Amino acid sequence: MEKFMEKTSMALPMGFRFAGQACGIKQDPSRLDLALIVSDAPCAAAGVYTQNRVVAAPVVLDRQRTPAGDVQAVVVNSGNANACTGEQGMIDAQRMTQWTAEALSLREEQVLVMSTGIIGQPLPMEKIARGIQQAAQHLAANDEHQQAAARAIMTTDKAPKYTSRSVSVGDTTYSILGMAKGAGMIGPNMATMLAVIVTDARMDPDRAQFELSQVADVTFNCISVEGHTSTNDTLLLLANGRAGGVALQGDGLGVWRRALHEVCGELARAIPNDGEGSTHLIQIDVDGCASRSDAHAIARAIANSPLVKTAIAGADPNWGRIVSAAGYAGVPFDPQATDLLLNGTLVYQNGQPLAFDAAAVSTSIRTNRQTEIHLKLSEGPGHARFWTSDLTAEYVRINADYHT
Amino acid sequence: MEKFMEKTSMALPMGFRFAGQACGIKQDPSRLDLALIVSDAPCAAAGVYTQNRVVAAPVVLDRQRTPAGDVQAVVVNSGNANACTGEQGMIDAQRMTQWTAEALSLREEQVLVMSTGIIGQPLPMEKIARGIQQAAQHLAANDEHQQAAARAIMTTDKAPKYTSRSVSVGDTTYSILGMAKGAGMIGPNMATMLAVIVTDARMDPDRAQFELSQVADVTFNCISVEGHTSTNDTLLLLANGRAGGVALQGDGLGVWRRALHEVCGELARAIPNDGEGSTHLIQIDVDGCASRSDAHAIARAIANSPLVKTAIAGADPNWGRIVSAAGYAGVPFDPQATDLLLNGTLVYQNGQPLAFDAAAVSTSIRTNRQTEIHLKLSEGPGHARFWTSDLTAEYVRINADYHT
Repeated sequence: MEKFMEKTSMALPMGFRFAGQACGIKQDPSRLDLALIVSDAPCAAAGVYTQNRVVAAPVVLDRQRTPAGDVQAVVVNSGNANACTGEQGMIDAQRMTQWTAEALSLREEQVLVMSTGIIGQPLPMEKIARGIQQAAQHLAANDEHQQAAARAIMTTDKAPKYTSRSVSVGDTTYSILGMAKGAGMIGPNMATMLAVIVTDARMDPDRAQFELSQVADVTFNCISVEGHTSTNDTLLLLANGRAGGVALQGDGLGVWRRALHEVCGELARAIPNDGEGSTHLIQIDVDGCASRSDAHAIARAIANSPLVKTAIAGADPNWGRIVSAAGYAGVPFDPQATDLLLNGTLVYQNGQPLAFDAAAVSTSIRTNRQTEIHLKLSEGPGHARFWTSDLTAEYVRINADYHT
Repeated sequence: MEKFMEKTSMALPMGFRFAGQACGIKQDPSRLDLALIVSDAPCAAAGVYTQNRVVAAPVVLDRQRTPAGDVQAVVVNSGNANACTGEQGMIDAQRMTQWTAEALSLREEQVLVMSTGIIGQPLPMEKIARGIQQAAQHLAANDEHQQAAARAIMTTDKAPKYTSRSVSVGDTTYSILGMAKGAGMIGPNMATMLAVIVTDARMDPDRAQFELSQVADVTFNCISVEGHTSTNDTLLLLANGRAGGVALQGDGLGVWRRALHEVCGELARAIPNDGEGSTHLIQIDVDGCASRSDAHAIARAIANSPLVKTAIAGADPNWGRIVSAAGYAGVPFDPQATDLLLNGTLVYQNGQPLAFDAAAVSTSIRTNRQTEIHLKLSEGPGHARFWTSDLTAEYVRINADYHT
């Protein structure tokens, strides 16, 4: 499988600068916890947000401000989610954008904000004020600063998550760079985590929103760690047009779109691959459904079953757990016309168990980071691909001890 | 809280005999794995079954045979679920009822069957034939045999689960006895586990089915361990009328119904209390919803969140995880009119975090087996109560190692 996040030199889109600062929001004062992403020119900006009914203050604010045509900055803090913080939380989120705007000579409405971390505690606003000032003074358009920004949005992530692509359309080269965070509280009911995608392509805000919503459906909405949809999930796209050329359309738009899919797909898979305590990335393909949404629902039920996740952690080819999880997804299908492959080995065919080399399949699970589950139904052409983590005792340890 | 399953003397309904045998289905040949429950008179019989699309052969068979007016026996094996076993599974389930009928001089249609254990492996029918013969020769109407039957349906359960109640209506005393199994693969989307309720009350099959469906909705359908709905979940009620008197109705039926609720409630709570690896029974009350089904959906989302379960395991009053789980249940509500109590302490009121003594709440979680979560919304009168287990590293160990 692909190696995540080992790249050292990124294709940085033109006209974007980055900073990552340590301002003391996290308990460890040496850890970066405030990021700033700034465009030299106004951007078409789009957002895709959590569908949780309980949403963090920065999500409320960004929803009001996207899509838009003149966004120039995103400020992000980690260590505190600014969620379930009542009216004070809304005031604080707005102040974060106000202070960022002042430091950068922008209007408040040109700034978007994201927060991630513990729920239900007020933001330490003095520290954040200082962090914003420092970050605004340390903006730069190079790999080092981009990576510092990617580090500053991490919580329990083991490594920063970022990637980029460049594509040429005619004489113009467009770059897309994305960064994301997420390792826990990852449920697949919207763009699940924080992520920012920046590009120097030119497009209007409605186009940006359409493209972002489309790509989210097959990337960030197809991942989970434990299935707990966060209050803060946010995916932003900023397009500043600094590569030159006219607004993308037709074949050129298609070329750019494929690169966007690659960037978002790589970032999305990096999240369950870094799932808290995980030892396997599990890829789930569900074929032969009446619709894509049926296939997605089944893949998601399999992905979120603790029994499936623990079986893979134990390198146990206990395929009955997979078939039975599919059965409670709420999607009608004929179990007698169902096949299942586990790491390429057919273990269940037309509703009948097959004799197979369980030791060999177990070894294949144990010795590969990625486990591949492929369920084939016979209801129609619908297909979905989904990624999740396995469930280990280490996940429990991390999450029983996170707060106290 | 109540102490589960420490009773030694049960109120045995008249006219029922029990047996539990070891016939070698489980790997440990000393463990009981075949149970027989037999009525001396024909019973009104009702069943409530899993809503999984992938159902085990015995569920298919029992669904065809209930409700009915002349059932006299239930045969149960543990160690093998006879699920995902194709046509051979259906033949084997039918043969279990056929052999039981022959040993007891009944007709095949008078016998119901349940199986629980590993999915996807053929039943060892020679062992089962021998077990049925032995059990039929060891039937008795006493505590010892009833407890052997309750032990014979266990898989990863740490203790047998059974309870009883007696109630008087006029001159007649009615007894209700129930036994259940379940500790893992417990999801709340139907009667989740195996359970048999026997009573000497008289009623017709439609009444038995109505009463069983009603009680299941507020007991066995309100529990989970990890939320994975099994292929085999079955709840049966057998009423043989041997206590005498006419068919129950009116106030007498109400008295009997309350006792049925107590029996089923106690058995249902015993399942998450014995949840694999669990250290807490978590009781979740959700008030103030537009409907009971809304409240149930929110309670279930909270119950099945690994982040909530690990927080309780770690005695961590991380209430943001509870509120955020409520938010993704798919039920609309106003977060600004939401309160949350954790073991009686108000931690969140009208959408605002409250200052509270986190150390005291943590101690209260750590030192009590039962944790109480109470979420109050402001949408209407709908209420639901739900029970689940916490999630520990031991759960992961049990389920990563169960099969191989």
